[in-house]
Amino acid sequence: MAIINKHFKKLQGSYLFSEVAKRTNKFRQAHPDVQIFSLGIGNTTQPLPKSVINGLLVEVQNLASHATYRGYGDEQGNTELRTALSQWYLELGILLHPEEIFINDGAKSDLANILALFERTNMIAVQDPVYPAYIDSSVIAGYSGAYKNGRYKRLIYMPCTPENNFFPVLPEKKADVIYLCSPNNPTGAVATKKQLQQFVEYAITHKSVIIFDGAYSSFIQDSTLPKSIYEIEGAKTCAIEINSFSKYAGFTGVRLGWTVVPRELVIEDTLPGEIHKAWNRRQTTMFNGASNIAQSGGLAALSPIGRKECKKITDYYLTNAQRIRECLNSIGLSVIGGENAPYVWAQTPAGMSSWDFFDMLLNQAQVVSTPGVGFGPHGEGYMRFSAFGQHETTGKAINSIQQNIHI
Amino acid sequence: MAIINKHFKKLQGSYLFSEVAKRTNKFRQAHPDVQIFSLGIGNTTQPLPKSVINGLLVEVQNLASHATYRGYGDEQGNTELRTALSQWYLELGILLHPEEIFINDGAKSDLANILALFERTNMIAVQDPVYPAYIDSSVIAGYSGAYKNGRYKRLIYMPCTPENNFFPVLPEKKADVIYLCSPNNPTGAVATKKQLQQFVEYAITHKSVIIFDGAYSSFIQDSTLPKSIYEIEGAKTCAIEINSFSKYAGFTGVRLGWTVVPRELVIEDTLPGEIHKAWNRRQTTMFNGASNIAQSGGLAALSPIGRKECKKITDYYLTNAQRIRECLNSIGLSVIGGENAPYVWAQTPAGMSSWDFFDMLLNQAQVVSTPGVGFGPHGEGYMRFSAFGQHETTGKAINSIQQNIHI
Repeated sequence: MAIINKHFKKLQGSYLFSEVAKRTNKFRQAHPDVQIFSLGIGNTTQPLPKSVINGLLVEVQNLASHATYRGYGDEQGNTELRTALSQWYLELGILLHPEEIFINDGAKSDLANILALFERTNMIAVQDPVYPAYIDSSVIAGYSGAYKNGRYKRLIYMPCTPENNFFPVLPEKKADVIYLCSPNNPTGAVATKKQLQQFVEYAITHKSVIIFDGAYSSFIQDSTLPKSIYEIEGAKTCAIEINSFSKYAGFTGVRLGWTVVPRELVIEDTLPGEIHKAWNRRQTTMFNGASNIAQSGGLAALSPIGRKECKKITDYYLTNAQRIRECLNSIGLSVIGGENAPYVWAQTPAGMSSWDFFDMLLNQAQVVSTPGVGFGPHGEGYMRFSAFGQHETTGKAINSIQQNIHI
Repeated sequence: MAIINKHFKKLQGSYLFSEVAKRTNKFRQAHPDVQIFSLGIGNTTQPLPKSVINGLLVEVQNLASHATYRGYGDEQGNTELRTALSQWYLELGILLHPEEIFINDGAKSDLANILALFERTNMIAVQDPVYPAYIDSSVIAGYSGAYKNGRYKRLIYMPCTPENNFFPVLPEKKADVIYLCSPNNPTGAVATKKQLQQFVEYAITHKSVIIFDGAYSSFIQDSTLPKSIYEIEGAKTCAIEINSFSKYAGFTGVRLGWTVVPRELVIEDTLPGEIHKAWNRRQTTMFNGASNIAQSGGLAALSPIGRKECKKITDYYLTNAQRIRECLNSIGLSVIGGENAPYVWAQTPAGMSSWDFFDMLLNQAQVVSTPGVGFGPHGEGYMRFSAFGQHETTGKAINSIQQNIHI
């Protein structure tokens, strides 16, 4: 008789976005003629630039004729795309062989799949607040232990607070696998080189591995901030980096990203190259490559003209972020993020709970935001505002907040 | 300190296709002027039909403009595509709610991912010979036990032999999770309704679950053969079906498929709906949906004109298969498959080993094929021939075999 994976029972309801929708719908029903403005959306809204569309079209046309049709590609991704990404890294001063870069179908899958590399006895550390998928994937894979008092017993939570500028200090307990996200979702905080250096040193000392989620790296404007963990000396021996075209090129629906597993990476009882080889085997066994159309689009997005056009879209969202920051500051809120990230993280006024402030913004200003407590206990008393909207909607939301919220 | 998943060490080298390439290259170097013909390729070669290309183009164009741009879709897939697939099932007399159909990025990923639903204590059964990914995924996920004398100790191998018409009899040991592939890769054998019925009854009795790989179902011409396991009464309570657009619509590079987890499915200690809910949670946590471009193409492939055009391509490959069958028969080999499947499975002459016959075909006829022993111990003494080539190449290979192989 087949037995269900018992860890599913430990999962907590994915309550955040359904509760946001529920409260929003309730307001809408009570006020059918009132317009609601969303600053809650984590989804991209700007169309793909011309060069990227052309990149996608080239491959669709290739598939239409005998001479250029291609079936299965390499599970690890097209060589041209892997080479273009190694060039992208080289411009940051990072030397990676294209074979160390594995093309994926967007960051989310591999942020979970990567756990296949490890034994379940490993202790996993996550930031708090945090993108929920790291935690839920760890639960399903059997790493988490039981849920009690708002936390999983075997996970190590690393608080992100004003005291540490929203980037965690080193974990007190020994952590074997450490998820770090910078620029961060939900806080918009970006780790400095010094902060990352501490984690790299910790990982080398403890033979731990860092899973670095750089999906928002294209938003970094401050040239002193690291866009890749491999800008830190020694990181290639202790870190896996997962990144995505979702936010850089608007590929949230197109699905494309990459995972770097350096040959130098070593953990306990492994030789250099062994983890790289294991990941290669995992991918060739359990994945058949990202869509060749998406890969062709990704290659175009990395071309000189593609980069220029993608940067315009990033700048568009950053303009929203700047306006959201100014608005929230102007009504007296303390904010971080939004300068090198598409998220603005604001402290609620006068110690209000996240959900109470959510209701206040919805009822008084008709603005939908995302309660910080939904991202973890240390998100309580905060609110996430997203810059991924259209200028027009974002502008209306901002005006409504300025006119209607008095604290 | 991070510990590597110890199961990777149990994996055996993926020897088959690299050894084929090695021997082929050696021959090529020794005979640089001699043309080699491949009947070994498992990859599609025919371009996508017009209607499908248009379906892909529609979504690329949608991504180019503000009004129609879409970012993240539902992780489970577009409602239109799930509905079109439920219609496809309805035409087979199978009632499935669109929400029971999860769109994936091709069968391979979910054939491995599906194991996340189960405890590692479950015993997995596989056909022998078999598509290697089922076994290797089971090893990585920790189900297999040690490798000894050509087999993993905790896996149950179900021999496919002439005595059982190459579809296995019920396992002698108790199996909890049973992988079945029909039409089969590598043998081309197709299970009858009666054969599947026995497995469904076994699964219901033992509260086991069948993972049914129907990726080659579009090749079935004989209307008495089941294209879906759900044509068998009771299968919705005990089977998960995984299928793909790869061979049906030439999407090997485009990446699209689906996984059916019926609400009625129950295993030990679960209620109806619980496994469906667990899979839904797995997918929303660890996957962000298949590419929206691929999904738009898939929808076109299921339209009336799309089906007609895709059928032409299937017929094209089946013409190859028929010619390969006739050729191998004409030189005195005993063959199965190829009538409702793109693979022809031939017994080697006079008890030759698979690799000896491979060498004979390469050296005497310059034809590359795939040694059956590479798919498992019961593949020894067999050879797989693929019908996925161009007519011209396939014709040349056939002529060369007829002229040069005398047994």
